[in-house]
Amino acid sequence: MKKILLTGFVPFLDNPINPTEEIVQGLHKKSVNGWEVVGEVLPVDFHVTGDHLVELIHKVQPSAIISLGLAAGRNRITPERIAINCNDGPVDNQGYKPDGEKIISDGPDGYFSSLPIKKMVKELENNGIPAKISNTAGAYLCNHVMYRALHEIEQQKLDIFSGFIHIPASHKLALTNNIPSFAQKDLQRAIEICIGCLD
Amino acid sequence: MKKILLTGFVPFLDNPINPTEEIVQGLHKKSVNGWEVVGEVLPVDFHVTGDHLVELIHKVQPSAIISLGLAAGRNRITPERIAINCNDGPVDNQGYKPDGEKIISDGPDGYFSSLPIKKMVKELENNGIPAKISNTAGAYLCNHVMYRALHEIEQQKLDIFSGFIHIPASHKLALTNNIPSFAQKDLQRAIEICIGCLD
Amino acid sequence: MKKILLTGFVPFLDNPINPTEEIVQGLHKKSVNGWEVVGEVLPVDFHVTGDHLVELIHKVQPSAIISLGLAAGRNRITPERIAINCNDGPVDNQGYKPDGEKIISDGPDGYFSSLPIKKMVKELENNGIPAKISNTAGAYLCNHVMYRALHEIEQQKLDIFSGFIHIPASHKLALTNNIPSFAQKDLQRAIEICIGCLD
Amino acid sequence: MKKILLTGFVPFLDNPINPTEEIVQGLHKKSVNGWEVVGEVLPVDFHVTGDHLVELIHKVQPSAIISLGLAAGRNRITPERIAINCNDGPVDNQGYKPDGEKIISDGPDGYFSSLPIKKMVKELENNGIPAKISNTAGAYLCNHVMYRALHEIEQQKLDIFSGFIHIPASHKLALTNNIPSFAQKDLQRAIEICIGCLD
Repeated sequence: MKKILLTGFVPFLDNPINPTEEIVQGLHKKSVNGWEVVGEVLPVDFHVTGDHLVELIHKVQPSAIISLGLAAGRNRITPERIAINCNDGPVDNQGYKPDGEKIISDGPDGYFSSLPIKKMVKELENNGIPAKISNTAGAYLCNHVMYRALHEIEQQKLDIFSGFIHIPASHKLALTNNIPSFAQKDLQRAIEICIGCLD
Repeated sequence: MKKILLTGFVPFLDNPINPTEEIVQGLHKKSVNGWEVVGEVLPVDFHVTGDHLVELIHKVQPSAIISLGLAAGRNRITPERIAINCNDGPVDNQGYKPDGEKIISDGPDGYFSSLPIKKMVKELENNGIPAKISNTAGAYLCNHVMYRALHEIEQQKLDIFSGFIHIPASHKLALTNNIPSFAQKDLQRAIEICIGCLD
Repeated sequence: MKKILLTGFVPFLDNPINPTEEIVQGLHKKSVNGWEVVGEVLPVDFHVTGDHLVELIHKVQPSAIISLGLAAGRNRITPERIAINCNDGPVDNQGYKPDGEKIISDGPDGYFSSLPIKKMVKELENNGIPAKISNTAGAYLCNHVMYRALHEIEQQKLDIFSGFIHIPASHKLALTNNIPSFAQKDLQRAIEICIGCLD
Repeated sequence: MKKILLTGFVPFLDNPINPTEEIVQGLHKKSVNGWEVVGEVLPVDFHVTGDHLVELIHKVQPSAIISLGLAAGRNRITPERIAINCNDGPVDNQGYKPDGEKIISDGPDGYFSSLPIKKMVKELENNGIPAKISNTAGAYLCNHVMYRALHEIEQQKLDIFSGFIHIPASHKLALTNNIPSFAQKDLQRAIEICIGCLD
């Protein structure tokens, strides 16, 4: 069975929980639409997360990579269109504050996702789940891992679909934070539907 | 078994569906936490809806009234604190445009809800559903029916708990409108929890 | 010349500056459209602010009262329609946390503003300033002072126009807080226009 | 004197006015901080706007290009970080609906702006104007012209600073649309400050 590397993140900034963590743990080692899920919860750390992901790619040798991230404030599932060669935003969990530096000094300015993002949005909507292609994964750790995966695949000429999906908060997170939210089980169902879009 | 009159509305303005309609139809004639639900979907019409509701109060003779409304854009269940003696806002479904006139010419400026709104928010949160007391039901039909019910109860010295709960959009509505949303079944579960808060 | 009591507030919660303070100080002792402005910056304190305002009403003996408040997040000038007999919301500047208690135990649930709010919105728009009547002053100190002033006027049968206007953040405040904002001078111009609407 | 090509757009979608048009007309043929401004208001048309801009670049032979766009809903001046090789979004003014196709079939996925965007944000803030680097110019005409200019400069090895700045609505536009806004004169002042950041 083909393997998919599914990553999420630990909690960060003023989000006491991270619903991507629960999704990844919930799907780890499961078979979803013909794909064997290898789940990994990544640290929120500009200095280690990228390299850690690249090691995983070579260790797991997946046919697809979907990285998940929490976009607190968004009100729908948003497959990302592009990763950009830039780190910027607030401090990470180690207190490091990026300042617009490049992720890969001689890397291209951007990499489009190689996931079927239009098909994913369509399938999500067919299943009654609000979704939309996003034109920005930001410039924080979410964008960082999306870029590092796509760059490694490009550099090593690997045959792997790869990209990123931002999700809204879970209801549990929205109890404390005044942001839109989905039920956790609907967030997980959405990711299963996205995995189902992979050939 | 005590009766609760549960009202919702038909679709209005640029909302092609109204999730309150589905909740009311889903709970009509059901027994919820010891209450027999009498459901009614109200028209969105400043000239008939209020009187229609008053007739229903006398016909059904409920021990409690919960009126539901869609607050497109809100991201949590919001029991309302107060109704105000004012009609204002966009056109209703008959094309009538209110302009700040009083609902009851000699009525008080405001009526507090007599529902246990703090208890409702607490119970919803205990069940993992984001909720918050709202300080404004607006000045459209939602506020109008809340005011008319509370005024009739006051005038006729009726022993009825009465108030209003605004809900976010359903996922189905959010497929076309870029607003926060819950799953329809979670919206209905939230209202059942609120009914459960009535003594 | 008729006197108008114009109040604002000191900074509160996570707003390091309060643009109402600057407006009140800017217009204090000025003549605006035939009105002599008596400006007062109020503390953010549920236990003293209301009584302090009532003392001022009797000391200043104005013909009109306009209280100003910052509504961080709003994107236009919003004259308030109603004050409600309720304290609720986050802690005040003394650390007191209200919990839905009445402002005046036997007071009515609500008091409509007696300011010409429709005329104010119209005049603001005629002067190119976005404005809208708001149906909620919240339940924090802004609503509290609006209610106390209207209640005192009602109880003492005073001949005073009274009400509340919420303003968006100033650009200076928005440098640190990600919220909509106006230029400070346009906020002050807006309040002068509102004063001009008083007969 | 060095020339800067400053472009804006005509009104589009549900924005009856476009404040960028007024800025470009206001600064056309003016000298701003040592730059002679050549202003051009562009059509909102996926089929002609890009080529029209490229023609202008060769005709005007500027040392810098700043394209302006209205980001209805944003609450600060946002210099854009990157343009992406994609057309997507609602219909343009000719009724054409893009569907995620590439702008330049063999073009790179993204081009970073070559404007001093960090310096611009800093200068704007120093002048009391809320500003932030944006990580997405969208995928509509704004992104389209940003990409076409940067691509032409890259292909022809032209020595031109080039990029894009999104602005919030003007107060005039916000009279009809419920969105954040600045005074028109402050929008223009912001762009003059940005031009001043060019060496």
